[in-house]
Amino acid sequence: MIGITLKDGSVREFEPGIKAADIVKSISMGLYKNACAVKINGIFCDLHEVLREDCTFEVFTFADDRFCKDTFNHTASHILAQAVKRLYKDVKLSIGPAIDDGFYYDFDTPTPFTPEDLVKIEAEMKKIIKEDIPLEKFELPADEAIKYLTEAGEPYKVILCKKHADAGEAIKFVRQGDFTDLCAGPHMMSTGLVKAVKLTNATGAYFGGDAKGKQLTRVYGTAFPKASELEAHLARLEEARKRDHNKLGRELEYFTTVDVIGQGLPIMLPKGAKVLQILQRWIEDEEQKRGYQLTKTPYMAKSDLYKISGHWGHYRDGMFVLGNPDDEEQGKEVFALRPMTCPFQYQVFLNRKRSYRDLPMRLNETSTLFRNEDSGEMHGLIRVRQFTLSEGHIILRPEQLEEEFKNCLELANYCLETLGLSEDVSYRFSQWDPNNKEKYVGSTEQWENAQSIMGNILDNLGLKYSIGIDEAAFYGPKLDIQIKNVFGKEDTLITIQIDPILAEKFDMEYVDTDGKMRRPYIIHRSSLGCYERTLALIIEKYAGALPLWLSPEQIRILPVTDRAKEYAESISAKLLGDGVRATVDNRNEKVGYKIRQAQMEKVPYFFIVGDNEVNDNTVSLRSQKSGDLGVMPLEEVYAKIFEEINTKAR
Amino acid sequence: MIGITLKDGSVREFEPGIKAADIVKSISMGLYKNACAVKINGIFCDLHEVLREDCTFEVFTFADDRFCKDTFNHTASHILAQAVKRLYKDVKLSIGPAIDDGFYYDFDTPTPFTPEDLVKIEAEMKKIIKEDIPLEKFELPADEAIKYLTEAGEPYKVILCKKHADAGEAIKFVRQGDFTDLCAGPHMMSTGLVKAVKLTNATGAYFGGDAKGKQLTRVYGTAFPKASELEAHLARLEEARKRDHNKLGRELEYFTTVDVIGQGLPIMLPKGAKVLQILQRWIEDEEQKRGYQLTKTPYMAKSDLYKISGHWGHYRDGMFVLGNPDDEEQGKEVFALRPMTCPFQYQVFLNRKRSYRDLPMRLNETSTLFRNEDSGEMHGLIRVRQFTLSEGHIILRPEQLEEEFKNCLELANYCLETLGLSEDVSYRFSQWDPNNKEKYVGSTEQWENAQSIMGNILDNLGLKYSIGIDEAAFYGPKLDIQIKNVFGKEDTLITIQIDPILAEKFDMEYVDTDGKMRRPYIIHRSSLGCYERTLALIIEKYAGALPLWLSPEQIRILPVTDRAKEYAESISAKLLGDGVRATVDNRNEKVGYKIRQAQMEKVPYFFIVGDNEVNDNTVSLRSQKSGDLGVMPLEEVYAKIFEEINTKAR
Repeated sequence: MIGITLKDGSVREFEPGIKAADIVKSISMGLYKNACAVKINGIFCDLHEVLREDCTFEVFTFADDRFCKDTFNHTASHILAQAVKRLYKDVKLSIGPAIDDGFYYDFDTPTPFTPEDLVKIEAEMKKIIKEDIPLEKFELPADEAIKYLTEAGEPYKVILCKKHADAGEAIKFVRQGDFTDLCAGPHMMSTGLVKAVKLTNATGAYFGGDAKGKQLTRVYGTAFPKASELEAHLARLEEARKRDHNKLGRELEYFTTVDVIGQGLPIMLPKGAKVLQILQRWIEDEEQKRGYQLTKTPYMAKSDLYKISGHWGHYRDGMFVLGNPDDEEQGKEVFALRPMTCPFQYQVFLNRKRSYRDLPMRLNETSTLFRNEDSGEMHGLIRVRQFTLSEGHIILRPEQLEEEFKNCLELANYCLETLGLSEDVSYRFSQWDPNNKEKYVGSTEQWENAQSIMGNILDNLGLKYSIGIDEAAFYGPKLDIQIKNVFGKEDTLITIQIDPILAEKFDMEYVDTDGKMRRPYIIHRSSLGCYERTLALIIEKYAGALPLWLSPEQIRILPVTDRAKEYAESISAKLLGDGVRATVDNRNEKVGYKIRQAQMEKVPYFFIVGDNEVNDNTVSLRSQKSGDLGVMPLEEVYAKIFEEINTKAR
Repeated sequence: MIGITLKDGSVREFEPGIKAADIVKSISMGLYKNACAVKINGIFCDLHEVLREDCTFEVFTFADDRFCKDTFNHTASHILAQAVKRLYKDVKLSIGPAIDDGFYYDFDTPTPFTPEDLVKIEAEMKKIIKEDIPLEKFELPADEAIKYLTEAGEPYKVILCKKHADAGEAIKFVRQGDFTDLCAGPHMMSTGLVKAVKLTNATGAYFGGDAKGKQLTRVYGTAFPKASELEAHLARLEEARKRDHNKLGRELEYFTTVDVIGQGLPIMLPKGAKVLQILQRWIEDEEQKRGYQLTKTPYMAKSDLYKISGHWGHYRDGMFVLGNPDDEEQGKEVFALRPMTCPFQYQVFLNRKRSYRDLPMRLNETSTLFRNEDSGEMHGLIRVRQFTLSEGHIILRPEQLEEEFKNCLELANYCLETLGLSEDVSYRFSQWDPNNKEKYVGSTEQWENAQSIMGNILDNLGLKYSIGIDEAAFYGPKLDIQIKNVFGKEDTLITIQIDPILAEKFDMEYVDTDGKMRRPYIIHRSSLGCYERTLALIIEKYAGALPLWLSPEQIRILPVTDRAKEYAESISAKLLGDGVRATVDNRNEKVGYKIRQAQMEKVPYFFIVGDNEVNDNTVSLRSQKSGDLGVMPLEEVYAKIFEEINTKAR
């Protein structure tokens, strides 16, 4: 007998070789029906796991952990594959993983699935769930497995199987009734436990992610233990889709992309360019107030510079090299676009001899950067080849690190707060991986020292953070401010880094108070992050209805009568003179039509003016957010508007 | 006898075969001593010209025309070569042309000339001038000429001679006493006429301008008819050198360049970046007031875009292509950095269907551009690989061309006027060359039409302009606003172009008032030109002491006593709060030292404050331009400063 220690500390005895599922059943059938995974001696497994020794044992349900959700969704992907194989005999299978909020399966289909196909497949999936077919795991020797998959007519599975075999891995299968799949799991115990499924989309995808490979059909779906949860999820998704900057930002004419220019190279239309201009002026002024000095450094350099900084060795794949890279071997100059600003901005420090009096030297730049990524990964304003960062470096004495780091964090939080994004962020302390040293420059001592300094600062600040191993920059640890977009996807928005290494590589030094030459530390930081991404986030946050101070068009004046047109123009002139972005819609259209259009175009305020308003020096005020605000004296409206702009109200 | 018609209309008779020099002598020996060239039947020649038929005849002196100056300076280059050959037997000769304000001669020397060598050479030149050696022209058949030059041990001259022979040209020589040179002229009659010479510099230069060729020593000099003119010129040059942005701009820490980044890629230090920020905000705001909509388009595009615009065919040599250009043949995407903004900004127009109501659509952009030029041609902020243009395109109906063109010119002139550059400009109407059609896109009809429209507009404006044949953009004629820098070198600062062609290539169209689809015209224009070049011009114009509104540091406050430090800080805080860039120099240094430093760093105003000023709420005001302005009440000083900033006074 083996002793199984449950979460409450009680120990139960079972025959060795018992399945986890049977232990869960013995605890409660209700628990079994909701269980997605167990932790055995602290390690997550599915319920197929066979127990042979004493261990601790804990049961988890869908909402408890990402592992549970993945087990559940991944099982749904097998149900999808089974349904497809039942309906379309000549479809070939590729892979079917769980992903954020769902799963997909890649199929080689004679023709791509239509929306009608998806409806049929989803119906078949529901039948399979009703049939409550048990999932059974088994293994085969590699040669038998390959023979089996070849005879089954699954060429992609054969390739995958050979890969596992070459890596010396066991070849695992799962069988559910009439359907068998090459798969290592984790899996639920039967199809009936996957209660609510929905297929959401079908797109193209390359086998092995390789654009030169065969193009397959990828079917996306999501699954939940309860129909009500599925419905809530789909409603959330629908709302997110409405806010999606990649859709709304185009519809509202903030930006566009065109095929002849290329993916990942957004064109800022006048509305988008105006918001970026407002943000840039705000940030540059705010940074100036905080003692930063603006620089403007070139967008390219010879490979010589990147060799010193380490980018040539550690980041070259992500860089755009100009002309033929072979030129370098022939002794010619080779230029590359910059992926980061650091080595350029250091030249400002290096321009003359520096002393402790020059430190901390806070340098900021509105800096355009270029990263060479695949066209397939490009997305809206978020995954791009060219972007502009509110960049900066602080070159300082070691004893200034804590104070300056705190100032950087304070500035970043001020930016997030002002934009209304602060509630969506979390902090990650990104460290190097001592087992992956070739990814990084500098010595173990430098890394341990810098990480301990940053850890102390974060702890002194009482900041709540997670730790990301192997997430550091190649030259130092980072505090990453992570943000979730409307779809729940997490990305790094702002980062503050402590760099103990590059000052040495660039031979940066200063005369200290005692007359000796010393190496400075460097903080790499952003205040707002990347302008394009910030625009995307605020479009999504406000569903396109930006706060007044950020709105490209702030006020639209709608004259109802011809007599009111002159009055409208005079209001507009007054507002423009005060720097308010006002327009007059004096087309000969019905006022209802004009109001609907202003509403659709997310103009924050519109003034409706007719003969009464002209006579009384008033406007009938409407706001995007609150609708009709009634007739108000003009002076009162001006005061309200100016107050809202000046305080950057949300 | 032949009849020679002089400028005053009188006709004199001479034997056919008479030299121009003898006719001039017959007019007046005084005139002969000053004559550099004659015009025979309207064509410039030197005084060696032999007359055989009736003709008109006009005499020109040094200051009359560039041709005269060139004849004079080119003769000085022969004197230089003769002096060098007298002093250094083993030096080989290359070429010796006249250039702007002087001449040079390229020599193959065993070791480069030292400054001491130049002194010796200049002394020998003065001897040759004193010897007043006649210059005599003669010709040789090609084979004899090559034989002669080979025996003379002049390998570069042999190469040049063969080139002339291959081109079917006569092989011309000039002999002056003990020295003979392969040369077609034009030349003065004797060395004694070149009265005042000065060697100014020696640098390296490649034979044939080819970096793979042999490196030679280039000796620069200048020559004038009078010693006083030479002295005045050298003084002007010295003053220009003091103002040279490439020297002063570095010394005052506006910008720098570093070898590891590369030539032509200036790094804007905080002072330079601040001026560019001020200029950019000013121009973007001014353009917004004038109805422009700001855009921000990507810095690179696929070759597809440039193929439509014609840049791929007509401008590719000047472009930076990313990665291996051969990729294109393999069907991969090839990206290139943009050399111009046009095809990018058109995408804004193309974003949706347009009607006559959208026109004129005035789009502006602060646009960074990239041009692939040789490292050797790079110079300061003027010849660069990356620059930022106050760019814009107006898409319009044909009937809007005149009005909008005038607005563009008005805006450009407003910019030049505000910066104080307007007196240094001239206008050039740059046209295509119908004999060089392959350089241009579009039909003869389109070109003639566009040029006639632009000619009419310019004439209606009463603008005084020169015509530049073969100086147009590849897609249309230009009005170029030319500016001379402190060295007298002319460059295009601003350009306004009428483009009848690219709208068709990009299939741009609008619904006209009658419901029909029509092609717009496009005006390409700049308001300020290139920001880097503008910075260079204003540094030179103001010898580094920029007008107050443009100064990176506007006010420096110098407290004389410890008690005054607090007062200084309060003044600084007030000024900073009002957006004035003020600093306090509260180092423990003597006030005289602080004043000298503020003066040297070209700070426009400095406030000196001691105990008296604290008690009386005054400042002792000094200005960069006018020195000590005496003690003034603080409020009065504020008013003076704000007035000067707000009016952008010079």
